[in-house]
Amino acid sequence: MQIVRSAGEMQEFSEAERRRGRCIAFVPTMGYFHQGHLNLMRIGRQRGDCLAVSIYVNPAQFAPAEDFEDYPRNFERDSRLAEEMGVDVIFTPDDREMYPEGYQTYVEVEGVTNNLCGISRPRFFRGVTTVCTKLFHIVKPHVTIFGKKDFQQYVTIKRMVRDLNMDIEVVGMDTTREPDGLAMSSRNVYLKPEDRKSALGLSRSLVLAEELYGKGERNARLILEKVRALITGYSHTEIDYARICDTKTIMDVERIEGECVLALAVLVGKTRLIDNHVFGEVLKIG
Amino acid sequence: MQIVRSAGEMQEFSEAERRRGRCIAFVPTMGYFHQGHLNLMRIGRQRGDCLAVSIYVNPAQFAPAEDFEDYPRNFERDSRLAEEMGVDVIFTPDDREMYPEGYQTYVEVEGVTNNLCGISRPRFFRGVTTVCTKLFHIVKPHVTIFGKKDFQQYVTIKRMVRDLNMDIEVVGMDTTREPDGLAMSSRNVYLKPEDRKSALGLSRSLVLAEELYGKGERNARLILEKVRALITGYSHTEIDYARICDTKTIMDVERIEGECVLALAVLVGKTRLIDNHVFGEVLKIG
Repeated sequence: MQIVRSAGEMQEFSEAERRRGRCIAFVPTMGYFHQGHLNLMRIGRQRGDCLAVSIYVNPAQFAPAEDFEDYPRNFERDSRLAEEMGVDVIFTPDDREMYPEGYQTYVEVEGVTNNLCGISRPRFFRGVTTVCTKLFHIVKPHVTIFGKKDFQQYVTIKRMVRDLNMDIEVVGMDTTREPDGLAMSSRNVYLKPEDRKSALGLSRSLVLAEELYGKGERNARLILEKVRALITGYSHTEIDYARICDTKTIMDVERIEGECVLALAVLVGKTRLIDNHVFGEVLKIG
Repeated sequence: MQIVRSAGEMQEFSEAERRRGRCIAFVPTMGYFHQGHLNLMRIGRQRGDCLAVSIYVNPAQFAPAEDFEDYPRNFERDSRLAEEMGVDVIFTPDDREMYPEGYQTYVEVEGVTNNLCGISRPRFFRGVTTVCTKLFHIVKPHVTIFGKKDFQQYVTIKRMVRDLNMDIEVVGMDTTREPDGLAMSSRNVYLKPEDRKSALGLSRSLVLAEELYGKGERNARLILEKVRALITGYSHTEIDYARICDTKTIMDVERIEGECVLALAVLVGKTRLIDNHVFGEVLKIG
């Protein structure tokens, strides 16, 4: 497994792979791997002749008050796990390599970023789409794998790839969960023991919502009322948003028709967790 | 010579060229070719094994009040000229192919677009950088050639390519001029006979400015006063801007130090013309 820190070197590596006719699969990450990341790599390993993973905590997607400095990092462990997963190359640049002095170009997706995390975190998606565009140009993948735990991010990347004619297949992977249902996230390490139980409110409310949907309920407001009640029934929880949106436009719906997603962002203690469920899909919890 | 209208087909064409190890040179244009375009193609022909030209009048870079509808078009003549220049493939999509329903992604370069045409035409550069990003992803060039007549556009594209790690060499070509000095432009056809003479004010003021610079003048304000007086001495002229800027930042300078450009935009009759000169460079006029 190679470890590459320079964009130019990574491009040379990828060009050489492409000239040999090899398919490059790419998993962009911020590191601190959990089973969800490893599952993304497993798909990547199946889809590509060459599997590239990036590890980069992207400052452009954090607001000043957010947890950029404190975001958990452990490159030693990550690179060991990546090697075990059969990764061929890790691209792990520093900030000077990615945003040198005078940097001034940004990629913005408008419509699908206007709701949900786009409200709570105004610069977040601009940072994500910009860094992903850069990483795609550096790693030159044929296929890239994103987790659907970050559902709005997944929709935004798919929209960007299509709009900008990037010749890349975007594969979405179902959320990986702890045995009790908690969606895996690098930020779960922030959870204090007393908050760990309250964090279950998110996945349990997804189960409740799918049950109501299964019984024929299509009124978004009624489902959201019960979801909110379930979540706030746990201690130390504060809902940032709980919305039901069309999966293509990420706009709120009143009735669940076509493909719709229940999207949650909840502060549990001081940790902001997100989770989601697309109505009608299988929900593997507990 | 092939004529391709679909982005997917163009990508397949380019991927096949790349797999064969061939270098793709790309000249993006809005068509209505003049000698300037043909000179861009000549460089492209020298630089690439395969020469691709796009012809697309990009609505995203025109404001509602601008000349998008009236912009001169002549595909028959353009494709004949391209074939004579040895072009291998023309990519000429329609608006539905480039901006299908639901389109919502834009690329923006911030700093270098804040002055000059970025003031007069607020959405212009966002349209240019977005369409060029799309065209680069569709045509997949190794090298692309831009005219320096649109100096700020050339600087903006270079900045974008570097910032977003696009693996493309951007080549700038000197402005092609009529024998009397007028910079060639597809918009010159708009000039009424009585305005054609007044249009010479632009190139003649560049000559004057370089003469003053050659004699040691470094005060931008003094040079600009004489430039403005020369241009407005012609009838039916109205200066949009006449500024001296640093070529890297496109910010106004008080003194000419390092590499600086005199940039002009002038309404001649109803036609907006631009021209520029980098101080100290050879000015081939008259």
